[in-house]
Amino acid sequence: MSNKFLSDLASLIGAHHVLTAPQDVAPYLTDWRQRYTGQALAVVAPATTEEVAAIVKRCAAERIGIVPQGGNTGLCGGATPDTSGTQIVLSLRRLQRIRAVDPLNNTLTVEAGVTLLQAQEAAHAAERLFPLSLASEGSCTIGGNLATNAGGTAVLRYGNARELTLGLEVVTAQGEIWQGLTGLRKDNTGYDLRDLFIGAEGTLGIITAATLKLYPLPKATATALVSVNTLAHALQLLTLAQSHAAAALTTFEAMSDLCLRLVNKHTQRPLPFAQGAPYAVLLELSDLESEEHAQSVLNTLLAAALEKGIAQDAIIASSLQQAQQLWALRERIPEAEALEGRNIKHDISLPLSRLAEFCERCEQALHALGTPLQLVVFGHLGDGNLHYNIALPKKTDVPAFALWQEKINRVVYKTVAECSGSISAEHGIGQLKRDTLPHYKDATALRLMRSIKQALDPLGIMNPGKVL
Amino acid sequence: MSNKFLSDLASLIGAHHVLTAPQDVAPYLTDWRQRYTGQALAVVAPATTEEVAAIVKRCAAERIGIVPQGGNTGLCGGATPDTSGTQIVLSLRRLQRIRAVDPLNNTLTVEAGVTLLQAQEAAHAAERLFPLSLASEGSCTIGGNLATNAGGTAVLRYGNARELTLGLEVVTAQGEIWQGLTGLRKDNTGYDLRDLFIGAEGTLGIITAATLKLYPLPKATATALVSVNTLAHALQLLTLAQSHAAAALTTFEAMSDLCLRLVNKHTQRPLPFAQGAPYAVLLELSDLESEEHAQSVLNTLLAAALEKGIAQDAIIASSLQQAQQLWALRERIPEAEALEGRNIKHDISLPLSRLAEFCERCEQALHALGTPLQLVVFGHLGDGNLHYNIALPKKTDVPAFALWQEKINRVVYKTVAECSGSISAEHGIGQLKRDTLPHYKDATALRLMRSIKQALDPLGIMNPGKVL
Repeated sequence: MSNKFLSDLASLIGAHHVLTAPQDVAPYLTDWRQRYTGQALAVVAPATTEEVAAIVKRCAAERIGIVPQGGNTGLCGGATPDTSGTQIVLSLRRLQRIRAVDPLNNTLTVEAGVTLLQAQEAAHAAERLFPLSLASEGSCTIGGNLATNAGGTAVLRYGNARELTLGLEVVTAQGEIWQGLTGLRKDNTGYDLRDLFIGAEGTLGIITAATLKLYPLPKATATALVSVNTLAHALQLLTLAQSHAAAALTTFEAMSDLCLRLVNKHTQRPLPFAQGAPYAVLLELSDLESEEHAQSVLNTLLAAALEKGIAQDAIIASSLQQAQQLWALRERIPEAEALEGRNIKHDISLPLSRLAEFCERCEQALHALGTPLQLVVFGHLGDGNLHYNIALPKKTDVPAFALWQEKINRVVYKTVAECSGSISAEHGIGQLKRDTLPHYKDATALRLMRSIKQALDPLGIMNPGKVL
Repeated sequence: MSNKFLSDLASLIGAHHVLTAPQDVAPYLTDWRQRYTGQALAVVAPATTEEVAAIVKRCAAERIGIVPQGGNTGLCGGATPDTSGTQIVLSLRRLQRIRAVDPLNNTLTVEAGVTLLQAQEAAHAAERLFPLSLASEGSCTIGGNLATNAGGTAVLRYGNARELTLGLEVVTAQGEIWQGLTGLRKDNTGYDLRDLFIGAEGTLGIITAATLKLYPLPKATATALVSVNTLAHALQLLTLAQSHAAAALTTFEAMSDLCLRLVNKHTQRPLPFAQGAPYAVLLELSDLESEEHAQSVLNTLLAAALEKGIAQDAIIASSLQQAQQLWALRERIPEAEALEGRNIKHDISLPLSRLAEFCERCEQALHALGTPLQLVVFGHLGDGNLHYNIALPKKTDVPAFALWQEKINRVVYKTVAECSGSISAEHGIGQLKRDTLPHYKDATALRLMRSIKQALDPLGIMNPGKVL
């Protein structure tokens, strides 16, 4: 069967685009964090939506599982095939067209394989902002961003990938094409299929193109790093910043003192504050008026925070270069923690009103485990999203690490659940958290999800073994 | 069966809350616009989510159709039962609790029967803004707002009801309770069930409570009415306003000169401009800084618009009372057009880049029908949402009106489809547009919708005969 199947695919999209040689397929079989390596019948790379549809139809006829893949930068193994060698990887990278830029409607229509950076650049060329922004933006693709409902550093102001999307084009599990590329802000003609495919990680269908929202380009930004004594103070600073700046507040990132010290140790960047404080907040305003207006709002806000005793100290960037230096402190944390040793990572979110409580309870419960550990806590505080990572001593061997990882995950997720949080804020489920999900998700929600999966993909060929 | 069934319901929630007497049930059987009158076995009014679940289970056992109803202010007959007398109306109005106000998390959790005005007031009492705002806000309920994904006058800045919702509590068609009342800004743990129930008009399950987003209260607003010569100029004014004010631009409503003249004729309000122009735009900025700052941004923007020849004239409100007078011109259009005679109403949306083209083409096609008619065009221009209404001469009799209505609808919807628009922007489908929808909706989308309906409500008891 397999040979006939592969030659059929080759006749559909050209033999060059059906990869089977080990050296050709290898880069598609291991995830970005190198936690998973699978096998595949082939890596198949169509160039058009119609080719995607033809491949899906052929796979449906043979009951062959399809693993859609974009830039292969996912953090939960959602784009990596299993080890059976019976699935195909369907790479969307050749769907490369920017189909339309519409500055009057403030929309951009791109195909799934366009990278996030290319989408940002297309918007910029039309004097507009496409605000989604992530560390991997040079290589991650719009298809992957939408399949995982990506977050990033601009969610506080502009929302997740979901909120930035108006319309989709999707190939269903039956190989039909749903033409839903609307550029409308309002459309109440039936069920919200768009948001069902966004965040479904390719388990319900394959996103082949999207119409995205654009925004006016800000004229200026104003950036500051603020030291605070407690997480509660950081959250008071957030409320204060929102009441001063509302939607002009585009960044509110937090990092613990240990994060700054690790960045200092491993990347030789100086510690920003003469006197350390438990947390630092990176705060940025975007302004449509002028540099002066942005700075004036920021100064007023910081003066109020210092006067109220919410902030301990503040560094205001006086140039773009200084702003970049402040950003680098936040951006280089993942690199610094990796250089320090292996980490147990958690991508969690909490209601802001329970975030300080969570941190206190979780830290206590972790220390009660009785092994030396350090908390490397940073993240998108404005969204209630923490990267709550735990470093074990460097000498911990692999079996011990695995054992502690399981215990630590259980403590963190249990405390997250008790504080009404989520065990996956922005990275998704993939294969990494598939078996964990049922322990923390509402049972009725899981049943509804399974019913929808069964209804839209009755053969179970769409990214099998992911999410559910 | 019926008597036993009704006495079972009475034993579940109390006989007082199972209405069957004609005078008691009558207000629930006719829709707000009085286009539809149905019959019902009973009007059933539970007070808690558990009672709703118990009723649904009982109805599922007997295969009895359930028509959920909130404030009964819908515009498409979505909350009115059919004429068979075999369905029950399930009124959510007794689910009246404000469950939580969380100013730190900027969220509000309310039950389905809370009116929009009560939700706004609860937010205001916590010094926060719940921005959803509609003409019927005194009587429409949050449950209905979410079931229909309501729009209104603040969508440009804050989005539709969908974008204002973080979490839901829903009773499924099986009478289970999905506890999805999250207050999280980020949660990527599986399919987006929330947005599937929002806008489904009660055909997939019953929304019993919601966690809603709150915003900082603006410190000041600045309001102006601007006259423009063409729709293209109105759209240029929108782009200019966005580039000056971005998210501070909270209102951008348009109305044709005829709308202003009808308001003048029927409500005795003076015409705002000495010299009429084809369109007027009501524009409002919200500001977190000060009255002075709001006025200064508005003045700069309007000066630029006048200088570029985009605007013909502008009236800036210099007091709250003047602002209310400008708003009244927009708000009283529906009343004025009703006093002028019967109208054929359309709630449509277009990409902004095709809106002027649509209006030109549609007007031509309507005049080509060869009957005298007048266009009463107004709406939420910033969202691409027009209330594109057509007035026939007063003397038109009922059969002629029905005949023209069919012809006119066909012209309008065909032109909407040709310009990539939607035949229902903010009012939904209900029974009014159920038979029209299949002519204009993508066939694959319809198939997906039917699969989802079948999967979640296999007995077909949830609001039968609506949407699909």
